[in-house]
Amino acid sequence: LSEGDTQSVADFLVSQEIADVAAWLEELDTAPAMQAMRLLPLHDQAEVIGYLRPASQMIVAAQMGRRELARVMSAMSHDERADLFKQLDADAQEALLPSLSQAEREDLRRLAAFEEGTVGAVMTSDYATLRPEMTTSEALEALRAQAVDAETIYTAYIVDAGRALIGVLSLRDLLIARPRQKVVEIMDGEPIYVRAEAEQEEAARLIARYDLIALPVCDADDRLVGIVTADDAMDVAEEEVTEDIYKGSTLGPIETSVKDATIVMLYKARIYWLVLLVFGNIFSGAGIAAFEETIAAHLALLFFLPLLIASGGNAGTQSATLMVRALATGDVRPMDFGRLLGREVLIALALGLTMAAAVAVIGVWRGGPEIAVVVSLAMVVIVLMGALIGMSLPFIFARLDRDPAAASGPLVTSLADVLGVVMYFSIARVVLEI
Amino acid sequence: LSEGDTQSVADFLVSQEIADVAAWLEELDTAPAMQAMRLLPLHDQAEVIGYLRPASQMIVAAQMGRRELARVMSAMSHDERADLFKQLDADAQEALLPSLSQAEREDLRRLAAFEEGTVGAVMTSDYATLRPEMTTSEALEALRAQAVDAETIYTAYIVDAGRALIGVLSLRDLLIARPRQKVVEIMDGEPIYVRAEAEQEEAARLIARYDLIALPVCDADDRLVGIVTADDAMDVAEEEVTEDIYKGSTLGPIETSVKDATIVMLYKARIYWLVLLVFGNIFSGAGIAAFEETIAAHLALLFFLPLLIASGGNAGTQSATLMVRALATGDVRPMDFGRLLGREVLIALALGLTMAAAVAVIGVWRGGPEIAVVVSLAMVVIVLMGALIGMSLPFIFARLDRDPAAASGPLVTSLADVLGVVMYFSIARVVLEI
Repeated sequence: LSEGDTQSVADFLVSQEIADVAAWLEELDTAPAMQAMRLLPLHDQAEVIGYLRPASQMIVAAQMGRRELARVMSAMSHDERADLFKQLDADAQEALLPSLSQAEREDLRRLAAFEEGTVGAVMTSDYATLRPEMTTSEALEALRAQAVDAETIYTAYIVDAGRALIGVLSLRDLLIARPRQKVVEIMDGEPIYVRAEAEQEEAARLIARYDLIALPVCDADDRLVGIVTADDAMDVAEEEVTEDIYKGSTLGPIETSVKDATIVMLYKARIYWLVLLVFGNIFSGAGIAAFEETIAAHLALLFFLPLLIASGGNAGTQSATLMVRALATGDVRPMDFGRLLGREVLIALALGLTMAAAVAVIGVWRGGPEIAVVVSLAMVVIVLMGALIGMSLPFIFARLDRDPAAASGPLVTSLADVLGVVMYFSIARVVLEI
Repeated sequence: LSEGDTQSVADFLVSQEIADVAAWLEELDTAPAMQAMRLLPLHDQAEVIGYLRPASQMIVAAQMGRRELARVMSAMSHDERADLFKQLDADAQEALLPSLSQAEREDLRRLAAFEEGTVGAVMTSDYATLRPEMTTSEALEALRAQAVDAETIYTAYIVDAGRALIGVLSLRDLLIARPRQKVVEIMDGEPIYVRAEAEQEEAARLIARYDLIALPVCDADDRLVGIVTADDAMDVAEEEVTEDIYKGSTLGPIETSVKDATIVMLYKARIYWLVLLVFGNIFSGAGIAAFEETIAAHLALLFFLPLLIASGGNAGTQSATLMVRALATGDVRPMDFGRLLGREVLIALALGLTMAAAVAVIGVWRGGPEIAVVVSLAMVVIVLMGALIGMSLPFIFARLDRDPAAASGPLVTSLADVLGVVMYFSIARVVLEI
């Protein structure tokens, strides 16, 4: 295809959705990809770059001359332009700035200055504004004029002379208003907004809760400095979910996509908790060592050890996952702990009794009735305990102002292991040595 | 507050965001909540009901007379109305229908007929349509007329006389077009769309990929039958994530919120895999039983058993989580397996060696140099094996057309446990009995 008639390739690309073009370019080698991309109109090139993965963006930036890159970046949406700029090394940043306009340089520096993870770092500055004294027909004209550049014109922001945010107006409300009405009469004068220094997740949460198309962002002096759009909020929410899922398996955050991550990055994200849990599991070993005599006298007990301690961990992991997710979505709040505890005890007892019945059969077959009693009793106790640990840990973390998601499966399993070993052999000692 | 002056309560409620009013009503008892809700204008009541949890919606429906409920439902958005209708029992449905208009009855029956989980079950039928031969000013007038009822007017759908979808037009493009242009000239004639029978996740995926405000839904004959809006797609995506997270901890789907779930529902969602894994872990027990002689001769080996098998499970859980999430977000595709395998081996070796070093120190202290050698060697092998199981299982599931998310932590841990037991004692037998 890339060897063919350039005009037909260009026609093909223009007819495709931008997201698909970007995905297709990712598949190509650098030279044909650059060749194909340059067949697109400037505005489409700018959009395509916004869809590329960061690693691919860097390749494109390196391939383009300073002037070409500046021209494309001028056409990009302000937030994507700032994201790209932040990834460039200091030399490339310095080389690029003189080719941009004064306003673009200032916009870039301002957006790039916000810390990673804050609203400021994902917001964009190409929003549509209106003045409160405009009539609805003037406002519609004003939006028409801003339609090409603004990220969205479906929500317009009303600012006073000092750029303070005093209201929002949806294009829908503007269209159904009477022609002589003024913006100030039909706008929502108490808009939902967020501070630029707030965490990104706060913006995503507000957009989801109030079903917004975009959320205005204000600085400490209540001046409008940007907006976060719903599609960017969706990306933030997806990253947040990924981070929580990682925490649930004792994985640290990974700065890039898993595909692009280096061995060192992945090693670092994984080793910390693995080593920590090795030391945590010493207690399980110590528990076993403490019962060496009982074990030596009844080696048949060992057969049930993996099964019992795994069951406590599995039940605990389930409980922890239910609570971590419910706390994350707001379905359950930290204060609900007491109300849910009773229910959890009943469920865990029901689960434990069912599993005890299953294991009793194996117990009789492998070790006789006495062993069966020990193993069944231990199963109920261990499952109950695992479930309570798994359920409580997220709430304890929340109470300590830590992320409940850190109450991960492996952590719950390790705690359940230690207690499971001790419980099992204690019960065995009591029952078998009467 | 609910005892106070009704006018001031009404004023307060109207000044609040609908989502906040709904959250506040959820906190009240039934009688004051109904009293407060009835202070709102009809359209706001309809919106509030859309924000309530299903359990609360049922209480409201039961409290309202048939006529009152019909009036409120007429004002609801079509998709939320259908969701509410589907929850009513057959008697309540029958009682309600005569109070609705003919068109509403048909719309309800049609929307409620789609199976749970399909696009049809989340789409709404209150979308804005245009005819291809309209001029831009006629189109703007047409959208203005549809603005009150349509779920969104920011994307309009162009249908021919047979209601076949022939294009989409954003309000933005309509506003910047010249007044005499026709809709057919400026519309996108190859719109992204989805079939009503497709899975909901497909709609959510398309909306996220192409950053759409709404996605048109067509029936088998290409006729436009509804749209899915971005905010509804976000809800679908959140449910999908919850389901995947549940699978990652061997939890079955739960039909309602965790808070509202009954003991029986939660028991059912949990017991299946717990019992299955009990039987799975019998193999670990059998593994131990097979090495009873070696264990009896070197009881010190038992100290390291929990630590070693937990490490394999933990490393495996990490690998599985990384791959399941990367496959779910599209970061990694099933065909990438080969490319990622080599990297995983290197990372797992690095992790295993680090953990072996940690455990060697404990080994020397607890059991002397020979035990230290056994334990370190076993650690490297077990971590490598756990990581490979964890990494491969999601790809195997994907290849078998099953959900990779079913490659859950507890399943990986159980497999790693069995192999870990066998590896550990095999290595011990070889090294210690030379």
